[in-house]
Parts: sequence; structure tokens; C-alpha cells
Amino acid sequence: MHPAKAFERTVGDLRRGATESRLGVADRWLAARLQSVIESVDVRLELWDGSSPYSATSRPIGDLIVRDRRTLLGLIVNPELYFGDAYMSGRLDIRGAIAPVLEALSRTSAPEYSWKDRVLAALALPTTLASARRNVHHHYDLGNDFYQQWLDTDLVYTCAYFANQTMSLEEAQRAKLDLVCRKLRLQPGDTVVEAGCGWGALAVHMARHYGARVRAFNVSREQLSYARERARREGLTDRVEFIDDDYRNVTGEFDAFVSVGMLEHVGLRQFRTLANVLRRTVRRNGGRGLLHFIGRDAPRPLNPWIRRRIFPGAYPPTLAEVGTLILTPAGMSIVDVENLRLHYARTLGHWHKRFAEVADRMRAQYGGEFERAWELYLAGSQAAFATGWMQLFQVVFTPFETPPRYWTRAELDGRHRGARCTAAMR
Amino acid sequence: MHPAKAFERTVGDLRRGATESRLGVADRWLAARLQSVIESVDVRLELWDGSSPYSATSRPIGDLIVRDRRTLLGLIVNPELYFGDAYMSGRLDIRGAIAPVLEALSRTSAPEYSWKDRVLAALALPTTLASARRNVHHHYDLGNDFYQQWLDTDLVYTCAYFANQTMSLEEAQRAKLDLVCRKLRLQPGDTVVEAGCGWGALAVHMARHYGARVRAFNVSREQLSYARERARREGLTDRVEFIDDDYRNVTGEFDAFVSVGMLEHVGLRQFRTLANVLRRTVRRNGGRGLLHFIGRDAPRPLNPWIRRRIFPGAYPPTLAEVGTLILTPAGMSIVDVENLRLHYARTLGHWHKRFAEVADRMRAQYGGEFERAWELYLAGSQAAFATGWMQLFQVVFTPFETPPRYWTRAELDGRHRGARCTAAMR
Repeated sequence: MHPAKAFERTVGDLRRGATESRLGVADRWLAARLQSVIESVDVRLELWDGSSPYSATSRPIGDLIVRDRRTLLGLIVNPELYFGDAYMSGRLDIRGAIAPVLEALSRTSAPEYSWKDRVLAALALPTTLASARRNVHHHYDLGNDFYQQWLDTDLVYTCAYFANQTMSLEEAQRAKLDLVCRKLRLQPGDTVVEAGCGWGALAVHMARHYGARVRAFNVSREQLSYARERARREGLTDRVEFIDDDYRNVTGEFDAFVSVGMLEHVGLRQFRTLANVLRRTVRRNGGRGLLHFIGRDAPRPLNPWIRRRIFPGAYPPTLAEVGTLILTPAGMSIVDVENLRLHYARTLGHWHKRFAEVADRMRAQYGGEFERAWELYLAGSQAAFATGWMQLFQVVFTPFETPPRYWTRAELDGRHRGARCTAAMR
Repeated sequence: MHPAKAFERTVGDLRRGATESRLGVADRWLAARLQSVIESVDVRLELWDGSSPYSATSRPIGDLIVRDRRTLLGLIVNPELYFGDAYMSGRLDIRGAIAPVLEALSRTSAPEYSWKDRVLAALALPTTLASARRNVHHHYDLGNDFYQQWLDTDLVYTCAYFANQTMSLEEAQRAKLDLVCRKLRLQPGDTVVEAGCGWGALAVHMARHYGARVRAFNVSREQLSYARERARREGLTDRVEFIDDDYRNVTGEFDAFVSVGMLEHVGLRQFRTLANVLRRTVRRNGGRGLLHFIGRDAPRPLNPWIRRRIFPGAYPPTLAEVGTLILTPAGMSIVDVENLRLHYARTLGHWHKRFAEVADRMRAQYGGEFERAWELYLAGSQAAFATGWMQLFQVVFTPFETPPRYWTRAELDGRHRGARCTAAMR
């Protein structure tokens, strides 16, 4: 049968709601196309009747199981969106360890520069104050209880920093908090504004170990109430204030601006607003800031499934977008950039493993689709950071009038302040 | 007299070639305007009759001496261009240490984002192969003898790296060469292409201390002949090849691409070409590269005087321009960025001091105007890097398929490879 005819017939079958398990010529033809792509990365396709077009003699690293015709077609027509929904509903499954299979699949195409992506990225809808709050609630107000089941004990929901290969997730999260403080060269009495403070771990760390006075913004009520309780428990309420407001409403001038894991939720259209916030809040003489965010090599919209199901309104920017739309208009110099994508892959590996350990409880509590969506999101993100589809940038900046506050990175990274930093880590 | 009238009369005087030393009302009015600007940074203006409109009680850090009316007018109408030519010809002079005065003067305005600058920057003329060669000859073929009088003994004409505060220029240049090699994680047998190799110090360092096999490109014949002789003297001709050609003509695939101090001469319009060079020369799997260049916080053309007299065709790009026009189209991930502007200010301080020590000989050999132009260029550049008008970026990148070759910066910076690096430095 001519391919176009086969395709037409398959679509016709779908429209008629045909769900017979028998494979037609069109199914076989489509499956062969899909198999030829994923065979290059050693993944075996298995169809709803148990057959497989896999032809290689090598042992596959895992199987992609397609349970019906609709899923097969979806994977060919719009894999970015369809993969997630099909996996979530169970119409698509993975046999073998999910993370390596997703990593392999993401190597079948390249996160390259394309004008289509540029245009789509530019069209990213502006995030209004109201929608920002809504978007944040969608994800972060799932309940502290949900996150406590699989995050580290300090509830840090951003890329950790594994300063050495043997660190636990708990240690690596604390190492990250400390890395951020050292890159900011925090001194006792420094005033800090934090935009998007999660459950408050960084704000508390800055106050406790560096004597900083912190105003931390968040629009997630669940997180805020947890953060406030934490500050009370640690006796730091005089030095840390958690504010239920959008960071864009911040007033006053500060020694340091810090934002960890928020920029990717801001949306490209709001970057100018953030530039204005930086311009008015960072002290020109001696001020500095740090942005820690999920980014890209090239402008392209976030995977539509992640955008729809997990993070509405999210957009991971390129370093150039952050420079052109935020730091340059804010009159800032880029002092230092570190790409920690492998650390995020490892962080996500920890999260995914912990999540899998409580999968049964998750299913009972939130339902099977929810559990599968989160499993896919965690394992898929791990694959994206491992393969270079996603980057994790830490950018240190200062107003151009302020020279970098260190001479070499040895100081910046605190290795010359050994005693202090080690003490702070305990 | 009404200011507009005074101005008109001064222009009239100029047109008539009036050069009388007597100060008119217009002169005084213009001088007062200029003084009010530079008084904010404690610089005293002195006019051709020896008088000064300086009114502060504080002791100035230095004097700006204007020797005729034409110079006064030029400083007001087009200071960026006029300052250099007037200083060069002696119609403008500085009493006191030149570098601090220039640094103070550069603080009277801000290197800010403007649409005018963006447009001017975008119009930067394309650098053809022929004009690239011409531009390079203008500056670099002044003669090795000229540079040997004031550069370090290894003839490294780019920003040094002062790993500690006590390093000499010689040590800091060697520390820079080694920093570049470590950031590239060079291993014995690695193939390297170097675009714009100067007098060959880096190429020889990579071959000698890291066992790399280097193809180094340059279009300056004087430099090439020196570099080849150096490789012969050190017995490295089997590992280092110096090629008299434009880097854009490079063929083959390499483990590493490196360019130190060339990007700022390439011109914005040629960035796409460089992207193509990177795309075809850097091995996708395991390759990496480093760009070391003078940059900006915001797009703006190079100072027109420097562009006309010192570096024709030069344009220091922003990090975003390098990302958008080179690294993203080349399919590269940014792994690491370090801003070394304070190191460049110190390097230029060393050069300026050494240059001043041989000023008499320079004047005798090249003439007074040439000597003054170079003094101003060195001291002015020192001021620009000290005050944040100019940045010095080192950018490490890899093809997105290649994960960073290190886990933390401790490895990247080689501090965990202590023995090896120390040995290499000897």
C-alpha cells in the first residue's frame, strides 16, 4: 500500500473509533518508521499485539510499549505533547529503567536553533501578576506533604551542588545554598532580597550562617507558612521576613538580589519588568546579584506537555536572553556564569528514585495518572539535563560601577575562606 | 553674553583661525561647562592662558590642560573622538598620573544601554578577508621590536591572569596560558586549532606542557616568523604548526578550538562565519572550545578614536551577541564564563608603566605623536577596564552533545591536579 494511503486509512480507522488489536499494513508501516528512529539509540518498540518491528541484534536498553493505534499515531504526529499524555494514561509504557530510556530517546533529535522555535518563544504569553500566582499555585500548592515525601529534609526544590562525588542529596542541597552565599560574598549585616523563596531554606541559610538580613518573596501560601514556621523555630524572625507578594512589588534598595529557580517561571515578556526591579533594588555601589535558573542553548519553548501538565507559563531562557532583556537594561555586568546541568541531572536522579520509593502511596493518595505524570516529569527532566536539552545556569552580576568583589575564583568559591565555610556547613 | 551667541562667536573665531591666547567670554562659559562635569570626579581644567575655572577646595587628582580654543570646543562637541587626537598632538595634556585621571574622567558618564549605540553597533562594517589582513597589519606589524620593548618576555599581548597579588607580569601571563589549557582540559595528543595566535606563546605552551598538537592561524607575518622561530628553538615543530592564513579557512576537525584576543577584531558581521567555523571544526563528541575576548555589558561601538588610530575594524561584543550570533548557531552550550576585567586593568597598568620607561626611545624611533597615542591608548584602556566600560570574558563551551568535562570548578581550575599544574608552570 502506498504510504499516504496507509496513513489515510489509519486516520480513518481512528475517526471511526476502531480499536481492534489486529495490526494493519498502515500500523506496520508507521511502526517501522518510529522503530527506525529509536533503534538508533537502542530502544525497542513493542505494539499492542505484542509484536515488535525491532530488527537490531543488539540487546535494547529498554522497550517502548504502545498500547493502541491512537498512541502510535500521536507519537509520530506530535511526540512532544503526545508522549506525556499517553504515558500518564498508561496507553504508553516503558519496560526497563525509565530514565536511561528517556535519555536515549532525547538523543534522537537535537535541541538546535530554529526560527520556528524562536518565533514560538517570542510569542510566549506575558505572565500577569494574577496568572503568575495561578501558575505557582498549580505546581507548588500541591501541599507541603507531597513534596516532603521525596525532597531533601530542607525542602530545596532546585538543582543541588554535589561538591564531591560522595555527597548525599541533603549535603548537596546545603552545599548549593552555601555556594550561592559565597558567590554573593555575603557579609554580616548585608541586606538581601530573595525573589521566589520556596520553603525558605536559602533565606534561613543566609541569615543563620552569613548574618544577612533577608526579605524573601513568594506567592505560594503553603510554602510561606512553612518558611515562616521554620524561621520562628530557628529564632531568626528578626533577620528573615517572608512576604506574601510578587517579587515585582519589592521596594527599597539592597546589597544583594538573589533568585534561585524562579526565572524559568517568569516568562520572557516579563524580563523587562525584572530588569526594572534589579535596577531599582540593587545598590549601585557595592551591590550584586545571582540568578540561578533552568536555561537553554537556543531559544525554544518548553516541552508543551510539561508546560500544560506540570509548569504552566514556564519558559527556560537562553543566557543571551537573560543578558539582553534583563542584565543589560538593568545596567549590570556579568561577572561569572557556571553551568551546573550535570548536577541537576544527578539531583533529579535522587528525586526520581525517592519518588519511585513512595509511588504506591502517591497512587493511593493522588491517583495513577498523577503518579505517572510526575514519574515521567522527573525522569524526563533528568534525561533533558543529562543530554544537554536543558542547562542550569548560575549567573553572578554587579552594577557596572561595582567591580567584582573577588580577585580570583579561589576566593569566590570560598576555598580560601576554608574555616568559615566549613563551619557554616555544619 | 547669551550662551548661544558666545558659542557662535567661538565657532566664528575658530573659522577665522583666531588663535589668540586671550580668553573670551565664550571660552570662559564653555570652560565652566566642561569644568562642572569633570569637577565631580576631582579633575581640574587648565586653559591656555594658565587660568582655571576649578572652584572646589579639594586638591584635584590631576589637571587636564587645554592648549587652545579648538581643543576646548572639540572636547565639548565630540569628546570621544577629539580627546585622543588632541592628546596625541599635544594640544591636550594631563598633569599628574595619566591613568587615574582617565579613570576619573570615564566615571563622568555611564557605559549604558542606548538604542543609538545598538544601531551603530549593528552597522559595524563586515570584515572581509582582505580588510582583516589590513587591520591586523595596521596594529601588529608595527614590528616585533616595538612590542618587545614593553610586553612580557613571552610576548603575550592579551589580558594576564594574576592568580595571586604578588605575581609579576611574566608570571601572570604564564598563569593565563595555563588557565586556558586547564579550562580546555587539554590531554596529551589532543588536537587544537588556535585562531589568532599572536607570537605563538599559547600554542607553544599547549604543546610543551600539555602534549597537544596545535595548528595556529595568524595573518601577521612578523608575528608568524617569530612564532615559528620559537617553535624551532624549543624543538616543538612536530607538534605546533603556524599557518599564514585567516582562521576562516581552517579545515579538519579538532578536539579543541581556542581563540585569545581575536574575537574583538572579527567584527559583528563575521560572527556567523565564525559560528560555521566552530560547527565544522569542533568535534561534536568530546570537543570543546574557549573564547577569550574584550567585551561589553551593552552593545555600543568601540571608542571612535581607538577605532581610527589603534584598532581599525574592532568591535568588543556583549556576551549575548557572542551567544546569539556564534555559540547558539554553532550548536554549542556555554559551560563557564569568567569576567577578568580587573586582571586586564592590572595587565595594562604593567604595560603602561613599561611603555613609559622607554618613552624617550619610542619618541626618537616613532615620533612624539605616536608615543603619545600609545600612552593614551594604554592608560585609557586601563581606565576602561578598571571602571567597567570594558569587560574581559573567558567563555568555555562544548557541543551540546558533550557534557562538561569536569564535575566542579575545583577540577576545571586544576587545583585538584596540583602537582601536574605546578610542574607545568615551571
